[in-house]
Amino acid sequence: MTETTASPYELFYWPTIQGRGEFIRLALEEAGAEYVDVARQPKETGGGVPRLMQLLHDGEGSVLPFAPPLLKSGSLLLSQTSVILAYLGPRHGLCPDSEAGRLATQALQLTLSDLVSEVHDTHHPVSTQLYYEDQKPEAARRARALVDHRLPKFLRYFERVLEQGDGEHLVGTATTYADLSLFQVLEGLAYALPNTLSRIEHEVPRVAALRERVAQRPRIGRYLASERRIPFNENGIFRHYPELDLG
Amino acid sequence: MTETTASPYELFYWPTIQGRGEFIRLALEEAGAEYVDVARQPKETGGGVPRLMQLLHDGEGSVLPFAPPLLKSGSLLLSQTSVILAYLGPRHGLCPDSEAGRLATQALQLTLSDLVSEVHDTHHPVSTQLYYEDQKPEAARRARALVDHRLPKFLRYFERVLEQGDGEHLVGTATTYADLSLFQVLEGLAYALPNTLSRIEHEVPRVAALRERVAQRPRIGRYLASERRIPFNENGIFRHYPELDLG
Repeated sequence: MTETTASPYELFYWPTIQGRGEFIRLALEEAGAEYVDVARQPKETGGGVPRLMQLLHDGEGSVLPFAPPLLKSGSLLLSQTSVILAYLGPRHGLCPDSEAGRLATQALQLTLSDLVSEVHDTHHPVSTQLYYEDQKPEAARRARALVDHRLPKFLRYFERVLEQGDGEHLVGTATTYADLSLFQVLEGLAYALPNTLSRIEHEVPRVAALRERVAQRPRIGRYLASERRIPFNENGIFRHYPELDLG
Repeated sequence: MTETTASPYELFYWPTIQGRGEFIRLALEEAGAEYVDVARQPKETGGGVPRLMQLLHDGEGSVLPFAPPLLKSGSLLLSQTSVILAYLGPRHGLCPDSEAGRLATQALQLTLSDLVSEVHDTHHPVSTQLYYEDQKPEAARRARALVDHRLPKFLRYFERVLEQGDGEHLVGTATTYADLSLFQVLEGLAYALPNTLSRIEHEVPRVAALRERVAQRPRIGRYLASERRIPFNENGIFRHYPELDLG
């Protein structure tokens, strides 16, 4: 059911981090869709962060977006990660055809998005205006709560969803963008909180197996090995601060 | 474009708070839709929190939901506030008909949802497992960041969206569920952080006017005056702790 678009998609996201843009990149890569990662193109050819800032600032005739990632598809300007994925899913076979399956994929994505925000807030529990170094005591307390309560709760939830489904996919019987997003969250956790993830992972074998399976999908595998995949780093959502990896 | 459903909608949400369920209640009320607020019905007739917990626990044949609010519409079980609203919007004329308008309404709702989470985290910056009283120093710091940076940023954003549109609606030229949700956020802020809202509100006159206008819509007005509207309280998202209302 893959459709081809007249012009390639244009993705607008910060050029030096995976961040929330990575959920879109993974979906586009798995779809084999043609896309330009605009802010990673040279300023001289109309790319770079200035182009992203310009689009954020004036919306170019569309309802003003609040924050990246943004996706242009023809004349449409889309914002909010889960809206972009809900748009791409049916166009590229990355969610079930049924209304129930489509809506369930959207809900799973939003639950993943909630988890992503909670992981982000472990290193920024007070303010995104401050450096991590200026909120370390609060970060340690928040990380404790994530590690002890929230992360096990989320991962056990996804395990139960897999268990009630076909065991391999969160919804339906084929890979959806929610599966790709769960993979991405697990990769991020393996980078940021490796001890914590190791401890919990054995409790959620279907979740752990999904991560392996997605990594081995041909297009995803090629993407991960390419220069298009930006390495994790301490400017993104998933940051490795060993003192927060409380096991 | 209002459709009638064979059976009334069933909403499942905590019975003693507005919380995230209120965004759904407002949309259903504005639509004049028939719905049952199941957890507020007597246990003896199959209502109450036990019914909500049961549905959360087993999903009854649908993909397992993570958290309330949940909405049953015929055989569909929907979860995640913004997914439920994206479903109700086109069925009840609460978003534009165009694809661009529909997707923009969804993105606005998600931006409001991000703001709601940030307001919630002012009183729970460390953990939802702990009482507010056990995280007061962190709460004071987080509230400072909300009051000084994040809240002005969000409200100025919505002001610019109104300014670039028809001045009265966030998207299109009729009331959408995003307008209802912005109203609800402002009502919550007026309860929780009245000094802060007063200070910022004069900078965002279109936002302030939208709040007044929505309150005066006939169905919304009747709902707000009814017993169906649960009063704000210190168990919900918007809590009035004067020490966090930093002006």
